[in-house]
Amino acid sequence: MRDLYHDQLDSVIADLVTMTHSVRDATRRATEALLTANAEVAESVISDDVKIDDWRTSIEDRSFGLLARQQPVAGDLRMLVAALRMVADLERMGDLAVHIAKVARLRYPDHALPSTAEPIIREMAEVAEIMVTSVSQIVANQDVAAAADLEREDEVMDRLRRAGFRTLLSDSWEHGVEPAIDVALLGRYYERIADHSVSMARRVIYLVTGEHPAAVS
Amino acid sequence: MRDLYHDQLDSVIADLVTMTHSVRDATRRATEALLTANAEVAESVISDDVKIDDWRTSIEDRSFGLLARQQPVAGDLRMLVAALRMVADLERMGDLAVHIAKVARLRYPDHALPSTAEPIIREMAEVAEIMVTSVSQIVANQDVAAAADLEREDEVMDRLRRAGFRTLLSDSWEHGVEPAIDVALLGRYYERIADHSVSMARRVIYLVTGEHPAAVS
Repeated sequence: MRDLYHDQLDSVIADLVTMTHSVRDATRRATEALLTANAEVAESVISDDVKIDDWRTSIEDRSFGLLARQQPVAGDLRMLVAALRMVADLERMGDLAVHIAKVARLRYPDHALPSTAEPIIREMAEVAEIMVTSVSQIVANQDVAAAADLEREDEVMDRLRRAGFRTLLSDSWEHGVEPAIDVALLGRYYERIADHSVSMARRVIYLVTGEHPAAVS
Repeated sequence: MRDLYHDQLDSVIADLVTMTHSVRDATRRATEALLTANAEVAESVISDDVKIDDWRTSIEDRSFGLLARQQPVAGDLRMLVAALRMVADLERMGDLAVHIAKVARLRYPDHALPSTAEPIIREMAEVAEIMVTSVSQIVANQDVAAAADLEREDEVMDRLRRAGFRTLLSDSWEHGVEPAIDVALLGRYYERIADHSVSMARRVIYLVTGEHPAAVS
């Protein structure tokens, strides 16, 4: 019976890592839809989100079931509580990828991004994807050192966000209000994906060390 | 020993309700700072956020401690898991109030909102405040019927958001890019406060009924 329990615990972690891969793919494809004005790819990100939501329900139900039936203590308890919270982050990251895909779909067949805004959004998308990829490894390996490193990537994201605003507000911005709002919101979505990655990394730190890192604001 | 345990459980719920009141106050004061261009009030929302973060840590630590020491089952287990997730919603709502206050501070001594955008943001702020107020009662009374009603308020918020975009994108918008971005992001912040309220209401439904409501997207 104890062995079945540990198998179930391992499968919760394994599925959390798989779910993180799905979120990374959704982010990557949403970016592709945005940068290539591809409505079909945008549509697939939007319709596939239900799979990410299903992962959430499945991982939640099993984590809760293990909490209820096995009454785990110490490390296992922390792991299950961390899993319950990381699936909430992941579900939200999936929703943010959907928001990005919806901007691409709304502007199709036009490109949502004016050429002057494309480089900065492309860079933000790359940083977000790198962070989600890192976080899947951090969760898989419970890697506290890599989790602490993720904060540095997040600083890169903050710098990009500020640079994005400078582009939108410079005198040379000649695309008007609508694309400016799109770019501002897209920047926000990528920034939030990054924030949730940091939040997940911090949950791994708590899981391994038992110490609360400071809140992400 | 069982009595102390139930006292501790009750105090977790009571503090969750108090934390919800703090978040409602932060939202209300952030709106006041925005609508009256009051830098002092904006500053107080920003500096007081640490108190909301402290509530999170305190409620989290005690919930986790009760999970670890008391190994609760059924309703108590669901309650503690719900509490762990609701504090995450509340902390985030506090951060969103800070974002609103920061827009007011950034534009001070000017008003961040052009007069044409003020009515819509004022309405969004009112709906957000009503929703956070409802949610504190929903949590206090574990009121499933009121929790289900909250979805209707959220539809009002969605309509206001769309109306806001129409204002920003109409030919009569003559305030340029910067205030348009401010208004779009402020609308997003209020909408997210509303989303987190719905998310908390759904956790109360789960807590009482054991049924997962569908995800908020």
